[in-house]
Amino acid sequence: MKRMNVAMIGYRFMGKAHSNAWRQVARFFDVPIEPVMKVICGRNGTEVRKAAEKYGWQEHATDWREVIERKDIDIIDICTPGDSHHDIAVAAAEAGKAILCEKPLANTLAEAERMLAAVERAGVTHMVCHNYRRAPAVALAKELIERGELGQIYHYRGTYLQDWIVDPNFPRVWRLERAKAGSGALGDIASHSIDLARYLVGEITEVASLLETFIKERPSPDDPTKRLPVDVDDAALALCRFENGAIGTIEASRFATGRKNYNRFEINGSRGSLVFNLERMNELELYIEEGSNSGFRQVIVTEPDHPYIAAWFPPGHIIGYEHTFTHTVLDFLKAIDEGRLPQPNFRDGLRNQRVLAAIERAHASRVWERV
Amino acid sequence: MKRMNVAMIGYRFMGKAHSNAWRQVARFFDVPIEPVMKVICGRNGTEVRKAAEKYGWQEHATDWREVIERKDIDIIDICTPGDSHHDIAVAAAEAGKAILCEKPLANTLAEAERMLAAVERAGVTHMVCHNYRRAPAVALAKELIERGELGQIYHYRGTYLQDWIVDPNFPRVWRLERAKAGSGALGDIASHSIDLARYLVGEITEVASLLETFIKERPSPDDPTKRLPVDVDDAALALCRFENGAIGTIEASRFATGRKNYNRFEINGSRGSLVFNLERMNELELYIEEGSNSGFRQVIVTEPDHPYIAAWFPPGHIIGYEHTFTHTVLDFLKAIDEGRLPQPNFRDGLRNQRVLAAIERAHASRVWERV
Amino acid sequence: MKRMNVAMIGYRFMGKAHSNAWRQVARFFDVPIEPVMKVICGRNGTEVRKAAEKYGWQEHATDWREVIERKDIDIIDICTPGDSHHDIAVAAAEAGKAILCEKPLANTLAEAERMLAAVERAGVTHMVCHNYRRAPAVALAKELIERGELGQIYHYRGTYLQDWIVDPNFPRVWRLERAKAGSGALGDIASHSIDLARYLVGEITEVASLLETFIKERPSPDDPTKRLPVDVDDAALALCRFENGAIGTIEASRFATGRKNYNRFEINGSRGSLVFNLERMNELELYIEEGSNSGFRQVIVTEPDHPYIAAWFPPGHIIGYEHTFTHTVLDFLKAIDEGRLPQPNFRDGLRNQRVLAAIERAHASRVWERV
Amino acid sequence: MKRMNVAMIGYRFMGKAHSNAWRQVARFFDVPIEPVMKVICGRNGTEVRKAAEKYGWQEHATDWREVIERKDIDIIDICTPGDSHHDIAVAAAEAGKAILCEKPLANTLAEAERMLAAVERAGVTHMVCHNYRRAPAVALAKELIERGELGQIYHYRGTYLQDWIVDPNFPRVWRLERAKAGSGALGDIASHSIDLARYLVGEITEVASLLETFIKERPSPDDPTKRLPVDVDDAALALCRFENGAIGTIEASRFATGRKNYNRFEINGSRGSLVFNLERMNELELYIEEGSNSGFRQVIVTEPDHPYIAAWFPPGHIIGYEHTFTHTVLDFLKAIDEGRLPQPNFRDGLRNQRVLAAIERAHASRVWERV
Repeated sequence: MKRMNVAMIGYRFMGKAHSNAWRQVARFFDVPIEPVMKVICGRNGTEVRKAAEKYGWQEHATDWREVIERKDIDIIDICTPGDSHHDIAVAAAEAGKAILCEKPLANTLAEAERMLAAVERAGVTHMVCHNYRRAPAVALAKELIERGELGQIYHYRGTYLQDWIVDPNFPRVWRLERAKAGSGALGDIASHSIDLARYLVGEITEVASLLETFIKERPSPDDPTKRLPVDVDDAALALCRFENGAIGTIEASRFATGRKNYNRFEINGSRGSLVFNLERMNELELYIEEGSNSGFRQVIVTEPDHPYIAAWFPPGHIIGYEHTFTHTVLDFLKAIDEGRLPQPNFRDGLRNQRVLAAIERAHASRVWERV
Repeated sequence: MKRMNVAMIGYRFMGKAHSNAWRQVARFFDVPIEPVMKVICGRNGTEVRKAAEKYGWQEHATDWREVIERKDIDIIDICTPGDSHHDIAVAAAEAGKAILCEKPLANTLAEAERMLAAVERAGVTHMVCHNYRRAPAVALAKELIERGELGQIYHYRGTYLQDWIVDPNFPRVWRLERAKAGSGALGDIASHSIDLARYLVGEITEVASLLETFIKERPSPDDPTKRLPVDVDDAALALCRFENGAIGTIEASRFATGRKNYNRFEINGSRGSLVFNLERMNELELYIEEGSNSGFRQVIVTEPDHPYIAAWFPPGHIIGYEHTFTHTVLDFLKAIDEGRLPQPNFRDGLRNQRVLAAIERAHASRVWERV
Repeated sequence: MKRMNVAMIGYRFMGKAHSNAWRQVARFFDVPIEPVMKVICGRNGTEVRKAAEKYGWQEHATDWREVIERKDIDIIDICTPGDSHHDIAVAAAEAGKAILCEKPLANTLAEAERMLAAVERAGVTHMVCHNYRRAPAVALAKELIERGELGQIYHYRGTYLQDWIVDPNFPRVWRLERAKAGSGALGDIASHSIDLARYLVGEITEVASLLETFIKERPSPDDPTKRLPVDVDDAALALCRFENGAIGTIEASRFATGRKNYNRFEINGSRGSLVFNLERMNELELYIEEGSNSGFRQVIVTEPDHPYIAAWFPPGHIIGYEHTFTHTVLDFLKAIDEGRLPQPNFRDGLRNQRVLAAIERAHASRVWERV
Repeated sequence: MKRMNVAMIGYRFMGKAHSNAWRQVARFFDVPIEPVMKVICGRNGTEVRKAAEKYGWQEHATDWREVIERKDIDIIDICTPGDSHHDIAVAAAEAGKAILCEKPLANTLAEAERMLAAVERAGVTHMVCHNYRRAPAVALAKELIERGELGQIYHYRGTYLQDWIVDPNFPRVWRLERAKAGSGALGDIASHSIDLARYLVGEITEVASLLETFIKERPSPDDPTKRLPVDVDDAALALCRFENGAIGTIEASRFATGRKNYNRFEINGSRGSLVFNLERMNELELYIEEGSNSGFRQVIVTEPDHPYIAAWFPPGHIIGYEHTFTHTVLDFLKAIDEGRLPQPNFRDGLRNQRVLAAIERAHASRVWERV
């Protein structure tokens, strides 16, 4: 079988999830290309060596530029914080590598534009890892909508709620620093809601918004006696209009006490509705209007003919969060093999970024803004 | 026991619900004043006579002005569409009657202001029937928030979803006509979400919004071959800021297929969260942060020490929609007896109306508007 | 309209629920006979006078024999504890009254047999108040099963769980005394599960069982320093076979901490399944096998074409526990008017009693027993 | 690090799940012993070779006796149908291998007894793979019960419901053949409910039961025109008493239409209750009696201090079915390293088997039987 060598840049949360995906994909699916876990790369030599051993990479490295220059590397998987996506992706494109990049694509619109230009110029395969598209229940939602089961879509209602920084003494980590993270809940989790909205409903054309930072200073992670400013949003709220006439609300917060990873959407169409919640990611609530005995039905998305499921276990034997990454790399490999662009790719990443930017502008201007 | 004679103007959906409340209140609660169901009034003589018999009113009448002039009438209960609230309420105030008025208080801000002025000038008892405040689970939510169980409130997330006009051939009834109803989903159901927001979180200070009419013409109810314009909103979406720093979303729609009377709110505070859904009105989901074994708990609000419950049945024996009206007239009678103003009263009704008006302005201006 | 005078014997929990039903039925439904709340009867003169005022009865009395002898009384409604059902019902039958009797029909099989003989000999209308048959969701379940939507029934799984006596210091009230109550959880709540099983699935032919009394002595309700024996079951468990080949489990307990009135059943058939839970009595979970996107759907049983609902409120506006009694007296009045026997009647009550007796025998013998 | 070579016998459903566990365990957990996936063994040479490649085993073989004789093999993992467990396990014990055996331990009580004797005589490590003990929510349930959070346990209510053979034309596969499978729903899934009962509540001392085969003949899997008898149970129901005074129901069925892998238990104690459902295996419903605002709380069992979770992902990022096997092999390796017996081991497997046998006897005798 054809093999391709993968180099992964970054080794923390996303590095762990992506490593698992590369390791597992050929164990469950019939892949057209077998990925070889060649090298993992990170700035801290000690840590990256441990990660290589733990996650099963053949080599480890500390300089991503050297890694990208290696002739034997075919795929670059970018799992670093957003502030380095641009430089790594542009270099990887110029080196002719296929690129899988964590979301959000970049920290600024300008970076995202340059990244897209670079991959298109280079003609390489590119994909953004909005992994939730590949939860089987979400992929099923897409199928149902495409088949017209919901009729004309009227409403999108996306909420992505977490509570990990409700405690005012939680430290000012990099995700709360604009220079590193670009934004707060907006880029980290609202971007997922936006991606799902674009995937399932269509393009967003304009937004009104509100960003809020409830706790404006937090202890330094290095020295708890010092306090550092929080310059990203704790919560991001938006109203939006879609190209196809649908309207929506998008709400992301890290201050929703009790909500751990509550990435929920509800879509209402003229014939039916759908509800998904990542905390119960093996289920899809489906309403089809069929008279008085209709009702939201809890579809357990574990049947052999549901997306991706045949490779896993029998009905009712659920899968978890990590599997969405396995499905992502599967589709990435298939796209490479078939010489086509996977979705979502850098065009989607850029479009997502434009929505994020419009939300920021609308917050500042207090006026509806076009995307 | 002290008795007071009630005259009810209007006899349809709300007339039925209010009649039941007047009939039942003294059968379950120890009322300080026994209400006597004296006269029901409506324009259609045949219909109102039938309603009087059915619902148990002693008399029926067709001219509300005559009814208000009767010396033996103590309480006027206004259950008509919004376009007649102003005239009836002002006349009732001038005649010195205690007034219970259905929501929304009026069809315009100017009317609402004159109504408040009239009742204050006359010194009569006045109340707006936002009955959902008196669902025991909502009253319990209020208690928990007042006691500080949720800490500082960060988020209000109100959605009131129905689907009764999704079918484009549903006729253009009075509720879809601006001249009669004032507005669509906004005044009819978003006003409930706003009332609950004000009750549980605090005053709303500014809003951004979007109103949408998906189906712009519908068959005439009188002649289905003719089509009439729909000049009210099918859906109303708003972002809002509260005086106390909380932020919120409010969404009302009659196009949410599968949602029948889904009046849901979620409130997130620094220590806990609450979820209520009118379709399961005997339950309150309560999250209190207590470490890793915390979770949203489904409180069945049917214990003897829960608000209003001791009068009804043992734990687990649920009550229904109509009971919220019974609780409303109970508190109205108590307020009269104690010589104080019940809540919500015409001041609340006016404040609610100001929020509705700001939402309409923000929709037109595409800018955040102060309430 | 035709009128009939009702006398109710008993005035506590069931008296309150039945009074409400008699008062309300003609206010919402088109009844063929208008019930007149003539006289309420109980042993304690002071209490029964208060109940008469509170619940709206015209007269009150303390001697049920005198009440039954009154020529102007047409209907006797028996709401007393089980130990007096027999005497009252037999006397009422001999006096030619129509009889509505609370469940369980009697405290012993012999009594139940004599009661049935009496009403049949007298030719009077008779009904047992298993009110849960008239929750709209249960009546809908019946319709669906009758129409064959579930195919052949394989399983009945009935659990009726409460927790009101988990505290060992809860007093030894009459319901915990065999001489008054006949049995414990068995007759009080398992009898409901059995009635629903018979209504929805069919006749039970044999049982294995287990009865348990966890707390064998409790404080006297009159003198907490004294302890009295508990001689009824705290929990009753049974396996059963039905005439039609289905099999079932029935479990009733007053020791299920956290369960307040959890009267749940699940029925599995060859084509579909149903779940009902009294704590969410306006919902029916319905599964119809239709391929991989099937799922348990939450039907909100509040549509106009659902049983009994047209008389109440619009979709999504739920009703409560008390309404099941209103539906019961409605059907009782209709049956009288149409000269036919309502269901469930004393034959059903006796059959239910036979199942209860078989469960007690099987507990004692430790062997499967025929009903 | 210490390494041990694993040989797995069997390569189908359980083979796939166990392979994944051996592959993944050291990638997420700090294992004291690194398992080496040495050889996979099955009767069909072509199939087992494919499995070896797919699942990542170094070698493949077709004769399990030869594999067991290999000096370089340290661990035998038995994933075959029940009819070969005895021979493989006894041989493996005699060869001094550590043994992990799929459940149920054997097809007969006599076999199970000989297997236990063999491993004890040989002094090898032995474990039965009742993997659901290692769902984090189940392990948390165990912790809560051990800490006394539920008080004295009164009730166990176990249901394991599936629907994969409801269609009468589903073929007579090996699981429906007594000679291969030993029993039907009883050994396959009721055995899990029994294991959870023993783990969480205590030893079962006596049972009453009912076994039923609804469809008595099915098409041959090899030749659909021929029909073969089904000589195992489609459903198994039991009442049981525990040593500690608790009582229980256990119900397993493959005829519960709509239930895919509904392995649910509810436990009621004097202070609280627990509910678990494998289809939502990342959640535990927990009720602690704390006054009127108590309620069943949905604990999302994904916090770092929940059992096994720290190795996986952040709160709210759920895991799946396969992870329970990874946890099982982790604990198996730890037990080997620490020179102690893991739980559940062959003693538990035998005890489970005794309960299964008592259920079969009670079905035949129609009398309560001691375990």
